[in-house]
Amino acid sequence: MVRRGTNFDRVGDFNDAVVLDAIRRSEQLSRVELAEATGLSGQAISNIARRLLDAGLVREAGRLRGAGLGKPRTLLELEPTGRYAAGVHLDPSVVTVVLLDLTGGVVARRPVDQGADDPGVLIDGIAKTIEDVIAESGAPRDRVTGVGIAAPGPIDVERGVVVDPPNLSTWHLVPLRDELRERTGLPVVLDKDVTAAASAERWAGQGGSFLFFYLGTGVGAGLVVEDELVRGSSSNVGEIGHVIVDPEGPLCYCGRRGCVGESSQPRYLVQQAVETGVLAPGIDLDDRSAVDAAFARLCELAVDGPARAIVAALATRIAKVVEDIANLLDLERVVFGGPHWEQLAPVFGDAVRDALTDRFLVRAVHPFEVAGTALGAEVGAIGAASLVLDQTFSPNPSLVGER
Amino acid sequence: MVRRGTNFDRVGDFNDAVVLDAIRRSEQLSRVELAEATGLSGQAISNIARRLLDAGLVREAGRLRGAGLGKPRTLLELEPTGRYAAGVHLDPSVVTVVLLDLTGGVVARRPVDQGADDPGVLIDGIAKTIEDVIAESGAPRDRVTGVGIAAPGPIDVERGVVVDPPNLSTWHLVPLRDELRERTGLPVVLDKDVTAAASAERWAGQGGSFLFFYLGTGVGAGLVVEDELVRGSSSNVGEIGHVIVDPEGPLCYCGRRGCVGESSQPRYLVQQAVETGVLAPGIDLDDRSAVDAAFARLCELAVDGPARAIVAALATRIAKVVEDIANLLDLERVVFGGPHWEQLAPVFGDAVRDALTDRFLVRAVHPFEVAGTALGAEVGAIGAASLVLDQTFSPNPSLVGER
Repeated sequence: MVRRGTNFDRVGDFNDAVVLDAIRRSEQLSRVELAEATGLSGQAISNIARRLLDAGLVREAGRLRGAGLGKPRTLLELEPTGRYAAGVHLDPSVVTVVLLDLTGGVVARRPVDQGADDPGVLIDGIAKTIEDVIAESGAPRDRVTGVGIAAPGPIDVERGVVVDPPNLSTWHLVPLRDELRERTGLPVVLDKDVTAAASAERWAGQGGSFLFFYLGTGVGAGLVVEDELVRGSSSNVGEIGHVIVDPEGPLCYCGRRGCVGESSQPRYLVQQAVETGVLAPGIDLDDRSAVDAAFARLCELAVDGPARAIVAALATRIAKVVEDIANLLDLERVVFGGPHWEQLAPVFGDAVRDALTDRFLVRAVHPFEVAGTALGAEVGAIGAASLVLDQTFSPNPSLVGER
Repeated sequence: MVRRGTNFDRVGDFNDAVVLDAIRRSEQLSRVELAEATGLSGQAISNIARRLLDAGLVREAGRLRGAGLGKPRTLLELEPTGRYAAGVHLDPSVVTVVLLDLTGGVVARRPVDQGADDPGVLIDGIAKTIEDVIAESGAPRDRVTGVGIAAPGPIDVERGVVVDPPNLSTWHLVPLRDELRERTGLPVVLDKDVTAAASAERWAGQGGSFLFFYLGTGVGAGLVVEDELVRGSSSNVGEIGHVIVDPEGPLCYCGRRGCVGESSQPRYLVQQAVETGVLAPGIDLDDRSAVDAAFARLCELAVDGPARAIVAALATRIAKVVEDIANLLDLERVVFGGPHWEQLAPVFGDAVRDALTDRFLVRAVHPFEVAGTALGAEVGAIGAASLVLDQTFSPNPSLVGER
C-alpha cells in the first residue's frame, strides 16, 4: 500500500476533525487550549472554530477566567443536537436500535419486533424502528448522519453482507447494508458486533489497549490496541469461540470438545447444575426460555450458594482465554459485557481476577485490569452508532491527502 | 490521546518520507508516477525529488520511454549506499549483528563472541562487532543512522531495558539501549525479537495481516495487522509460550502442563523420540549440544522416516495456536521462522497446512496461507535494523504536526 501525501489545500478537513475530536475528548476547551493540544496555530484554530460553530457541531459554553492576567477565554463544547447516529445490534436473541446524539449519549432506544425468521421481514422491522426512534427523540431527520449495524460474523464488509452467522440459520449472504440503505435513505455502515462493542467502550473513555469480551449467544472478542480499533484483514476480528479450554468438555458443532463458546452456553451450565444436584432435574434443555429461566436461577444460586463452583469454573475457563489474548497482544484491560454479563458479574468478575493474578506475563512492566461494561446490554447498538460518529467526525490519518 | 493537527509549514518531512517510501516499494518510479501514486502535485514532487537526490537518498536510474508522445521519464530509485542501519539479534543461543543498506539488503554480518554470561562483557562484544561489520562493509560511518536491537521480552522500551528474559538468567533490568548508545555513539532502538522479525518480513514484502511464528529457544509471535506492526501497550506483544496445547504434555516452569513453548523444545521432542524408540537411549537431556545434535537427527528421521509422527504432532499443536490467533485477528497468513524452522520445515509446513484446513473460520471470505521465512536465521537481526530504517525513513502519520 502506497501512502498518499498531503497537498496543502487538502488538509482542512483533517484539521477540522482533529479539533472536533479534541473538544470531544476534553468536553470543554478554549481556543488557546485547543492550539496547545493540537499544535495548530491560533489563527488556524479561530478559522476552524468558526466553521464548526457555523455547522452547528460545537457551541460556546461560558467563559473561563484564568489565573493570569489574560482576558477570559470562551470555552467550546460539542453541540449534542448537531448530529445524530442510529445504531442497530443484530443479536440472534434480541435486535436493538438506539439513537445517539453527537456526544455519544443515547437519546432513544427500542427493541425490534421479531415475529419471523425471514431476513426481509426483520430488515423491514429494523427500518421502521429506526424511524420510530428518530421520531421519539425529536431529532430533525436531516441531522441523522447514518446507521451503524453490529452483526455477528462472518461478514463481508465490501459487499455489506452477513455471510452465514452460526446462530442465525436463515441468514445466508443477506445484503443487509444495501437493503437498509434502500429502506432508510441513510448511509449505512456494517461491522462486527464485537468491534462495535469495543468502539462503544472507546467512546465511553476506555483507552490504550484492551479486549472487549462478549458473553452472549456466542462469545467473541473486540479489540482496541494502542487506541485504535483492530479489524483484521476483512473486519472479521474476534472469532474466539473455538479456543479449547476443557478437552473433556461438551462436544462442539465443530467436532472438537471443550470449545469456550460451547462450554459458556447457559444450556451447558444448566446441564452441569442439574447433574450436580444444584438445580432440580426435569428442565427441557431444548426449550430456550426454560433454559434462560434456569440459568437466571443458577446465577442467583452462585452468589454465596451451591452454584458458585459452576460459575467459578466458567470464569477459570474464560480467564485462560483472556490470559492468552492479553499476553499475545500486551493488553492493559479486559472489559466484559453482553447479555449474560450482568447475571454472571457478582461471582464471575472476582473469579476471573483471581485466575489471572500472576498469569499476565508482562506484569513486571504494567498491570492488567478486569472490568465490566458500564454501557449495559445496549453496548452493541451504542457501538454500532459510534462507528457512524467515528466515520463522520474522527480525524483519520488515512484522510490526509485523500480528499 | 489528543491527536495533533497539521500546520502547513510542518508537512515537508512527512511528504519527503511518503515519496521515499513510494520509491522503495516500487523499486523504480518516475516523477509523474510518483505524483500519481502519492496524490502530490508535480511541483511538490520535483522539489522533494531534488531534496532526496541532494541528500544522497535516491539516484536517477535511466529513462523510461513511454508508449505515448511525451518526453522520456527519468526513473528514481533508492541509493543503496545513502544510509545504513545496524541490527542486533539477542538470542540466548546466538547473538548476530548485520548491517543493512538503504534498500534493506544485508551488506555485512557477524556473530558476536559469547565468552561470558556477564551482560557488560556481551554488550562490549556487540559494540565491537558493530564496528567490525561497518568496517567490513566499507560503509562510511557517518551514513550509519542507528542500531536496532531485537531482544527477548519482557522489555521496558521507555527505559530501554531488558527486564528479565526467561532464558537469560543473568540478565535482569539490563539497560541495553543506553549502554550500547554510549559505546557506539549511535542512536539505538530496542524492540522485541518477534516484532523485529515481523518488521523484517514486512520490509521483504509481506503485507496485509500476518503472524510471524518464531521457533527457537522459545516460541513467540510477531504481528502485522492491516499493514502495521502491532506492539501492544508496552511493546511486549507476542508472548504465546504458555498457551496450553496438550494438557497431558510436559510440565512447564509456570506450573502447568502442555504449554506450547515447553512442548516445542528440542529437549522434549528428543525425549519423545527416545521413549518411542526412534532415537537410541543414553542422550543426556541436560547437555545442550547433545540435545541439539539429537534434534538434528530427529528432524532428518522425520522426512519419510520414523520420527515423522513426532514432528507432525508438534505441527498439530502449533497449528492450534496459529488457528486461534488467525481467528482472533482475522489474519491472512502465518510466516514461520527462527533457528528451528529450517530443520523442521520439510515435514512441519505441510502438517500445519493440513491441520489448518477447514479450521480458519473466515475462510468463506478469504483464504489463510502457511509460509516460511525467506530471510533465514538472520530474520531477527535484519528486522532489528529494519526498525531503524522504519524510524528514519517511513512516513508515519504521527509525525504530521509533531516536527
